[in-house]
Amino acid sequence: MIFRQLFDRESSTYSYLLGDERTREALLIDPVVDSTEQNLALLEQLGLTLKLAVDTHTHADHITGLGALRERTGCATMMGSQSLANCLSETFADGDQLTVGDIKLEVLYTPGHTDDSYSFYLPRTDGGMLFSGDTLLIRGSGRTDFQNGSAEQQYQSLFNRLLQLPENTAVYPGHDYKGWLVSSIGEEKRHNPRLQVADQHAYISLMSALKLPNPKLMDIAVPANQSCGAVS
Amino acid sequence: MIFRQLFDRESSTYSYLLGDERTREALLIDPVVDSTEQNLALLEQLGLTLKLAVDTHTHADHITGLGALRERTGCATMMGSQSLANCLSETFADGDQLTVGDIKLEVLYTPGHTDDSYSFYLPRTDGGMLFSGDTLLIRGSGRTDFQNGSAEQQYQSLFNRLLQLPENTAVYPGHDYKGWLVSSIGEEKRHNPRLQVADQHAYISLMSALKLPNPKLMDIAVPANQSCGAVS
Repeated sequence: MIFRQLFDRESSTYSYLLGDERTREALLIDPVVDSTEQNLALLEQLGLTLKLAVDTHTHADHITGLGALRERTGCATMMGSQSLANCLSETFADGDQLTVGDIKLEVLYTPGHTDDSYSFYLPRTDGGMLFSGDTLLIRGSGRTDFQNGSAEQQYQSLFNRLLQLPENTAVYPGHDYKGWLVSSIGEEKRHNPRLQVADQHAYISLMSALKLPNPKLMDIAVPANQSCGAVS
Repeated sequence: MIFRQLFDRESSTYSYLLGDERTREALLIDPVVDSTEQNLALLEQLGLTLKLAVDTHTHADHITGLGALRERTGCATMMGSQSLANCLSETFADGDQLTVGDIKLEVLYTPGHTDDSYSFYLPRTDGGMLFSGDTLLIRGSGRTDFQNGSAEQQYQSLFNRLLQLPENTAVYPGHDYKGWLVSSIGEEKRHNPRLQVADQHAYISLMSALKLPNPKLMDIAVPANQSCGAVS
């Protein structure tokens, strides 16, 4: 598999390009609209055809590239069935599989950061790769105080879904603000300060004490992302 | 091998952590001083002991973490024999090997960006990994207009050394300003605009036409880095 992690410096967002070596078909996870030209250049240089672009959830801190990529390439665009986006080819739900060439990603519904938050898992004998969106971050987790977020649901998503994956699963998050790129389930179990809580009640208390300011772009990004990146 | 690429957002610098799973000994390439605490935390969480910290060259755009890491961990600190740094445990030269546990990095002298520029190559059956400093960047190359840089030498370093590595060698650069993290020798051969020149003469013309402003931090970083990061 051809694999590239891509970084948007403005919003500290990671996007992921997965390309199948046999069919030369590719998938982009969480593309950023400002990187559309760069992403198209990279696809072309790697000899890949974009078949599918997906968002893990409705982002509030950057504008999605889904709409622009579909316009330019005709790729399919998908988000979870809970998404309010009005411009998707199709939606996915828990237990579905995203297939691009020989790449098969398992779809995990992991609400909490938002009510449309999903993670994608690529199983492999080495523990595989988890694209965890803003559900599980490196030494952190996505805030749960807007967009129908729920610390209670996030606790379940983290402890009963993601942390049940093999310890050696590589964790590729939706963001990192300190310059770290990847982690593992075992590492997060042991060293993520938000995962050291005694129970769901303690997790809810921890998250409700955060009192974070709203993201700068929220009032622009959320409506834009419900139109796959069209800014009105 | 435990491997982590780390990003300093301020200077768009990549640092690299390589850890040997058997001995739990580790090496850091191009650490940034501001990330010292973070790097020490990561080493500890991964159960690694830092044995060696190296710089690919004297950086002009950020302050090295070599001195701070040595103070905190007692690790060895190394740079190339051409370096003017007054604070190294030892120097390396072309053809040397850096050994940390079972990890063996080949030292390649690749002058051009500066006269003390080195690259490190980890041979493997899959093409291996190249840590190319500022000699070979993703779709670019390091400027050659200060610190005894030389476009002529850089052409030789690129075409006669680095591009002779297997096409599937992964290229991990010292910086990237567009959010790309890794490339390959084959990809750079085909798509790096600076490597499409007809000959050395054309490369020198291309580099001398760049007329870049000096890096913001140059007057602070270069002397500081000659003292392994001590800012006087």
